[in-house]
Amino acid sequence: MPSDIEARVRESFARQGLMQHLGARVDRVEPGFVRIVMPYGEHLTQQHGFFHAGGTSAIADSAGGYAGLTMFPEDASVLTVEFKVNLVAPARGEQLEAEGRVIRSGRTLTICQLEVFAVEGTSRSLVALGQQTLICMAGKPDR
Amino acid sequence: MPSDIEARVRESFARQGLMQHLGARVDRVEPGFVRIVMPYGEHLTQQHGFFHAGGTSAIADSAGGYAGLTMFPEDASVLTVEFKVNLVAPARGEQLEAEGRVIRSGRTLTICQLEVFAVEGTSRSLVALGQQTLICMAGKPDR
Amino acid sequence: MPSDIEARVRESFARQGLMQHLGARVDRVEPGFVRIVMPYGEHLTQQHGFFHAGGTSAIADSAGGYAGLTMFPEDASVLTVEFKVNLVAPARGEQLEAEGRVIRSGRTLTICQLEVFAVEGTSRSLVALGQQTLICMAGKPDR
Amino acid sequence: MPSDIEARVRESFARQGLMQHLGARVDRVEPGFVRIVMPYGEHLTQQHGFFHAGGTSAIADSAGGYAGLTMFPEDASVLTVEFKVNLVAPARGEQLEAEGRVIRSGRTLTICQLEVFAVEGTSRSLVALGQQTLICMAGKPDR
Repeated sequence: MPSDIEARVRESFARQGLMQHLGARVDRVEPGFVRIVMPYGEHLTQQHGFFHAGGTSAIADSAGGYAGLTMFPEDASVLTVEFKVNLVAPARGEQLEAEGRVIRSGRTLTICQLEVFAVEGTSRSLVALGQQTLICMAGKPDR
Repeated sequence: MPSDIEARVRESFARQGLMQHLGARVDRVEPGFVRIVMPYGEHLTQQHGFFHAGGTSAIADSAGGYAGLTMFPEDASVLTVEFKVNLVAPARGEQLEAEGRVIRSGRTLTICQLEVFAVEGTSRSLVALGQQTLICMAGKPDR
Repeated sequence: MPSDIEARVRESFARQGLMQHLGARVDRVEPGFVRIVMPYGEHLTQQHGFFHAGGTSAIADSAGGYAGLTMFPEDASVLTVEFKVNLVAPARGEQLEAEGRVIRSGRTLTICQLEVFAVEGTSRSLVALGQQTLICMAGKPDR
Repeated sequence: MPSDIEARVRESFARQGLMQHLGARVDRVEPGFVRIVMPYGEHLTQQHGFFHAGGTSAIADSAGGYAGLTMFPEDASVLTVEFKVNLVAPARGEQLEAEGRVIRSGRTLTICQLEVFAVEGTSRSLVALGQQTLICMAGKPDR
């Protein structure tokens, strides 16, 4: 991972208005891996007061996209082609942690696994599992 | 559709903190069909200024979920089991319109098709296409 | 559609050992659309005697792939990037008909909708609904 | 795992006409895990001579379904609700090995991860990654 890739991810993330609006932040950046954290708030709920699947999916999508970006050339940007997510348990807790992990990185397409955990005290349990296909837009710098 | 189903959908939607926070609103409710509209704003963007796939997916998920709810008994609520979405074009425009449509409604599971359109002036073009599996929680009223 | 595209699809399909082995055949080829038919037989069953989801998915995948190929340049071949399918009803009947339909065709990626119908006498009902992402391998002729 | 669950899986698998027709066999059964092996043959190919994605998906679907069945009560059978698979590399080699692994097992729904590996000599590499939703049909024994 080029020494500045974490800075690139954080700078790009800061330009994602939606992530700011949801109160999400980048927690960790490694080659092929990004974790995003989002504390609970009423602005994130579905009708029963849990985290809305849409917010859960949004941070999962961003985590995967930036995990992919860590593997791309410096002059490339990333777009999500598609993703699929299973909501495996009600998403309740103090915060959600979304992890994107690159499974296969190609010249054009990159496949990520997406996991979202709900954290409550010392408990951390899987609430969503997904897969994502990304496309590398070569020669189109993210900035 | 029971005469009060539209009211039930709108009342439940109003309790989705995330939908309020994103500025989304219910545009239309029919048996097996719901449309949600979300005007553009910087709070909805990804790093290039387009609608973030996470927001696009969030309203698609809600549209499908409420489309399903229109087919459920009155004492039931709805949960998303999983969804998959292809982002088929950059989501730019004055607003997004997400449509959820029931394809198959069973006692336990309901399958919806999800479409999101970007509207700019008189142009309306598909930006996302998805499929969603819902589960009917019988005996657990939404409220 | 170039005049020879149907011939190209049929010739390529004939080289798919799996399709021959399953007893599937190309029923119809139009620009952006292909239908594949597969008559019932015990070699296609799951444990309860219905069509196995794996066979249903296999012809859906081929139908979508060839629907995509009809939109590609002559010197290109097609690969499936991913697909997702909901099995919306038990697949029983005299034959299955899988239809692939191009939703968005790009230079690199093409998105298809997949539908599989079970036919029994004059009844034809949806048993599977899917979405598929294809990649165009330019400069790599199918043959 | 009840002592007879492996026998139940193998007996049910033996009734899947498609699996027999493809030349697939059950390699391993553990609680929440099943591996299916399918040796290469021309009856399994796509147009370029690799394993067809449809066959790859078929054994992945069966592996996941039986992984789920190992967690079900004895009087229950399993149906696939939906699955999604990314074909991450060309599937070539002496044989494919599909592994289904239960991620979350509920009373009604079970979520599995699906992996397919291509084996060539001492090399074993991931060619497909998927997710699957299963439904437990309680009171409907598989046999």
